[in-house]
Amino acid sequence: MDMNVKEPNIVVVGATGAVGREFLRILEERDFPAGEIRLLASSRSAGTRFKVRGEDLEVREASPNEFSGADIAFISVNSQLSAQLGPAAVEAGALVIDDSSCFRMDPDVPLVVPEVNGEDVKWHRGIISIPNCSTTPLVMVAHPLNRESAITRMVVSTYQSVSGAGAGAMEELRNQSRAVLEGQTVEPGNLPKQIAFNIFPHIDDFTANGYTFEEQKMLQETRKIMHIPHIPVSSTCVRVPVFGAHSAAVHLEFQGPISPERATELLSGMPGVKVVGGPGESSYPTPWEVAGTDDVYVGRIRRDISSDHGLAMWIVCDNLRKGAALNAIQIAEEVLRLNCLAPSQVAAPSRSV
Amino acid sequence: MDMNVKEPNIVVVGATGAVGREFLRILEERDFPAGEIRLLASSRSAGTRFKVRGEDLEVREASPNEFSGADIAFISVNSQLSAQLGPAAVEAGALVIDDSSCFRMDPDVPLVVPEVNGEDVKWHRGIISIPNCSTTPLVMVAHPLNRESAITRMVVSTYQSVSGAGAGAMEELRNQSRAVLEGQTVEPGNLPKQIAFNIFPHIDDFTANGYTFEEQKMLQETRKIMHIPHIPVSSTCVRVPVFGAHSAAVHLEFQGPISPERATELLSGMPGVKVVGGPGESSYPTPWEVAGTDDVYVGRIRRDISSDHGLAMWIVCDNLRKGAALNAIQIAEEVLRLNCLAPSQVAAPSRSV
Repeated sequence: MDMNVKEPNIVVVGATGAVGREFLRILEERDFPAGEIRLLASSRSAGTRFKVRGEDLEVREASPNEFSGADIAFISVNSQLSAQLGPAAVEAGALVIDDSSCFRMDPDVPLVVPEVNGEDVKWHRGIISIPNCSTTPLVMVAHPLNRESAITRMVVSTYQSVSGAGAGAMEELRNQSRAVLEGQTVEPGNLPKQIAFNIFPHIDDFTANGYTFEEQKMLQETRKIMHIPHIPVSSTCVRVPVFGAHSAAVHLEFQGPISPERATELLSGMPGVKVVGGPGESSYPTPWEVAGTDDVYVGRIRRDISSDHGLAMWIVCDNLRKGAALNAIQIAEEVLRLNCLAPSQVAAPSRSV
Repeated sequence: MDMNVKEPNIVVVGATGAVGREFLRILEERDFPAGEIRLLASSRSAGTRFKVRGEDLEVREASPNEFSGADIAFISVNSQLSAQLGPAAVEAGALVIDDSSCFRMDPDVPLVVPEVNGEDVKWHRGIISIPNCSTTPLVMVAHPLNRESAITRMVVSTYQSVSGAGAGAMEELRNQSRAVLEGQTVEPGNLPKQIAFNIFPHIDDFTANGYTFEEQKMLQETRKIMHIPHIPVSSTCVRVPVFGAHSAAVHLEFQGPISPERATELLSGMPGVKVVGGPGESSYPTPWEVAGTDDVYVGRIRRDISSDHGLAMWIVCDNLRKGAALNAIQIAEEVLRLNCLAPSQVAAPSRSV
């Protein structure tokens, strides 16, 4: 990096959470050009110390006053806290990259997966949101196919790991599994039902139409990121007893014909996507193997035999990395590359999603 | 039962397997009117003793000569063994109720879920097959809805427990889970990949079109049981680290409109089906809760927002019970009720499936 350009000071809010810790790891791995790094978390976690880039950093309690001098604030906390801290960080002059669902559907907030709609960072007003961890891998795979032939419908069933519910849920899976193996009965803690040797179609709360918010997010966020208003997306989001990486069985319908061979070719050329196994081959990605890696893995690409122009496939992606922390850092990298750290003066695109 | 009617002598082949053991439990629970009970298994398991109805029974080695005097033979072994033992049992005068995929698609063999197509037992030639454990719950739910409005397409993603792969796979899940919790690395045994804290879309072998045989069975068997030739069914069958009970996220498309409320009403009236939660309610079945019970549980019934006349729902069913052993016993009960133990002389219906 040109040493005359000031390296941005960054604040990491939620530094001790599952996404926050992954974020700090990726920051080092990618040698992200950060100036000062400030770590914030809840009062409960304040005082925790982390070694980042060789520096010993103490986590401070998150508050709206902690953003002075910050150029970029990465926020990975719940929506209520994001609503409070995000605007304070913008006020202090920082670009906010937010991991919660708080701002995602705000028409003045870009919702960005850099490989899909990186150019949307240009019109931010101080906040850029990252999508939900089950949406990101879907749009990474759908995007290159949609450029070949317009997608007309998506049907998705997910197999989501407990890391998507935070570090506490990972501990819950571990403890419950031990207890069940020892013949004890267990009670749910953070999660709505027993997760050890069990699954449940219940992520986030239920909405009036019978879908969960998690499932609604997949619909709305896909439309916004891919710039395809009105595309129908129906999903069932299911928690499974896996520590890290989300999987999904995906059925895509297209306006015109698209063969598994052509889809494989297009996906192989997509940055951030890795195709596992050719059409008809018996290799495929699994969450145990994919956890801790950066790419979106897609396998079992085949014709959807129940649709005229359909494809079925299997997608696996580490939800803490490309599904959250890595995507956030890639957004920051895109912002620096396009030199658009400051809020845009141009009008936000008006789209009906 | 009328004491003048001879109670049928039965032979249970595969008595020491996961399905066989469940079969013996259900036989007692339902007080099935059996005369003599003979237990057969592989040479490895011969000599095992079981207490059935208070009688102490020794398991003998399965061979084609072990069926003399049998009225009904329940066979739950692999297809190769079924191919050898099934015809021998028929030759000896028994009605064979077979759990393997060996005879299912034979046009001379009825494939039966009694609540759906019980009348098909009438035209058997000595063998009746039971469907694959992931097909049975699907047709139990699809059938009453299809009578209201014709189903035109099914898209299914399964979450299948290890008990579907037998007792050895259950032990493998237990042992691997312990090892992972202790920080050890594990190697797959019976199953194609690590199953502890992992999932994989690989049940049975792969076919040339990229689907597995398990997924192809769901298509072909659904058509045969429901008497709907050509109905398109596309599925992804996935193994999950659950001991018992299979789950599925199901999308059904219909010729005409059918509301979640009407579907709930129809399913509530279907014998063997239990609806959990009303439309928009947040209760739903899970495999941990359902394992060991007889019914097919359906929840999360909602409009498929990506289809004109579609419904999405969540189905859970104990694959060893209604998915296998219970269904087999219900077929025998239906045969006795209709008094059609002897092979039929009427022509098998010719249907294009």
